[in-house]
Amino acid sequence: MAGHAAKTPVCVLGLGLIGGSVLRAAAAAGRVAFGYNRSADGVNAAINDGFDATADLDTVLPRAAETGALIVLAVPVPALPTLLDHVHRLAPNCPLTDVTSVKSAVLDDVTAAGLAEKFVGGHPMAGTSHSGWPAGHAELFVGAPWVISVDDHVDPTVFAAVLDLILDCGSVAVPARSEEHDAAAAAISHLPHLLAEALAVTAADVPLAFALAAGSFRDGTRVAGTAPDLVRAMCEANAPQLVPTLDRAMELLAAARESLTADGSVAELVNTGHAARTRYDNFPRNEIVTVVIGEEDWRRELAAAGRAGGVIRSALPVRDSR
Amino acid sequence: MAGHAAKTPVCVLGLGLIGGSVLRAAAAAGRVAFGYNRSADGVNAAINDGFDATADLDTVLPRAAETGALIVLAVPVPALPTLLDHVHRLAPNCPLTDVTSVKSAVLDDVTAAGLAEKFVGGHPMAGTSHSGWPAGHAELFVGAPWVISVDDHVDPTVFAAVLDLILDCGSVAVPARSEEHDAAAAAISHLPHLLAEALAVTAADVPLAFALAAGSFRDGTRVAGTAPDLVRAMCEANAPQLVPTLDRAMELLAAARESLTADGSVAELVNTGHAARTRYDNFPRNEIVTVVIGEEDWRRELAAAGRAGGVIRSALPVRDSR
Repeated sequence: MAGHAAKTPVCVLGLGLIGGSVLRAAAAAGRVAFGYNRSADGVNAAINDGFDATADLDTVLPRAAETGALIVLAVPVPALPTLLDHVHRLAPNCPLTDVTSVKSAVLDDVTAAGLAEKFVGGHPMAGTSHSGWPAGHAELFVGAPWVISVDDHVDPTVFAAVLDLILDCGSVAVPARSEEHDAAAAAISHLPHLLAEALAVTAADVPLAFALAAGSFRDGTRVAGTAPDLVRAMCEANAPQLVPTLDRAMELLAAARESLTADGSVAELVNTGHAARTRYDNFPRNEIVTVVIGEEDWRRELAAAGRAGGVIRSALPVRDSR
Repeated sequence: MAGHAAKTPVCVLGLGLIGGSVLRAAAAAGRVAFGYNRSADGVNAAINDGFDATADLDTVLPRAAETGALIVLAVPVPALPTLLDHVHRLAPNCPLTDVTSVKSAVLDDVTAAGLAEKFVGGHPMAGTSHSGWPAGHAELFVGAPWVISVDDHVDPTVFAAVLDLILDCGSVAVPARSEEHDAAAAAISHLPHLLAEALAVTAADVPLAFALAAGSFRDGTRVAGTAPDLVRAMCEANAPQLVPTLDRAMELLAAARESLTADGSVAELVNTGHAARTRYDNFPRNEIVTVVIGEEDWRRELAAAGRAGGVIRSALPVRDSR
């Protein structure tokens, strides 16, 4: 073929909000994109919207293998082990990524299935409180950070392929090690979900509360509208990181309660909270442009750059060092 | 004057976000509206925007007294006692309301200043994370619930005057007793602020957290951007209601932590939180139309209607029973 090579096809396994949006975004970027969903409802909804979808894993995976597709794991964490067994049996050489929220747990499952060599984890930091195929759209990821794994095992070629998909979806890629991602996700995603649930439950018992509820409550409980199964799946899969994060938040609240009853003051919590939020508002996002994928120390360099707020906005050069 | 009587003039004391927005909304509704602010900055900003403002309490209060203006207390709670002394000295017969967030504390201060007879408390449930005159606008309250007090002492004529201002600002009035308001405000406003502060502080200590933060974190910490003095003032003034509310939230979080470590599950919190949020989304807002202000039991009837989600969207008939 003259000119640019055709883009890698994409095979999305799981057509919920996230997977369904990846399928749409990949197709919108001009790729061959096809998907699988366990329930016929999701498959039919996708087909009715003009997409290439099936409920038959035994045909979709051989097709992925034949076309060398990048397989995107987009099912809930509890469904992964069974799905990975099928991938290992029918498409063991395809490059593989995922879009689920807990990277260490997924990496463990992928490793147990013997597929780590072809796997580079991912996590788009986007979503809505709605779920399922109908809630998705091709622009869901535009401008959002999308974590891409730079763990020690990561292969440069697979990394480049996953990065290409992330950029096609309009996201900025944030390179991170799985365990660092999970600690951060506990703080900025899983803890907020638990706080939102606790806030909703607390207010529900107070007469007049819902009658008066406005912006603070609506914002503070928005993610409590997320389907309970999804919230449970991500919080429970990340328990090792979530528990200490939750402890820290409870410690801060307990100290504020103590100070409020003893001295009538919540100054410490309020001042440090405001300072932290201000730091977040001013957090820099620099573009990572100097790293060559596959050169010595490239994974470590990318992890450090991601930690400092660096993002990848366009393709990086690749030198396959293997 | 033929036709409709002129609207009651409005004198706003304190031209921050809320007071400044009341001044603008009252003027936009065609009222004579004038204001006072302690700092010259706020006064100059208001004057530059074409409004009638002064930093001189000793002229603004006699003017309110001469014109029979409705005085709106819009200063932080700690500044109230001194301000109320001036009101008592210079404009003791003006109808009086407030727009601060803790109704029992304000009522205590107003009673101590000998002004309870002319006072009907209010609390617009609107705001942004910004503060000061420049952050305000005439439409800030449009569509928002605005609590109006129906405590036992409330005078029908003053109530009707305050209700008229609330409706002029485009809000829906929610009648409530002060102590019930404060319990609800603890749950839907003050607790969300403390949770947002705790979330911001927790995430600030986790490397990579700000780099990945997206919707859940941004929404969950939005109110941590509010000026610390304002957050402290409302939380600390409502400590008697906030402490048990905070205890309830911490109890829910502690139970979830226990369940997560013991059984790997956060099902209880997540399911009840989702159910509570769903109830909130479907909370009915019925219009209150049958109550006559000043008739027997009118305050009790309004309090019960407010508790059930009732709101006042247009003027109610008044019969002054005094």
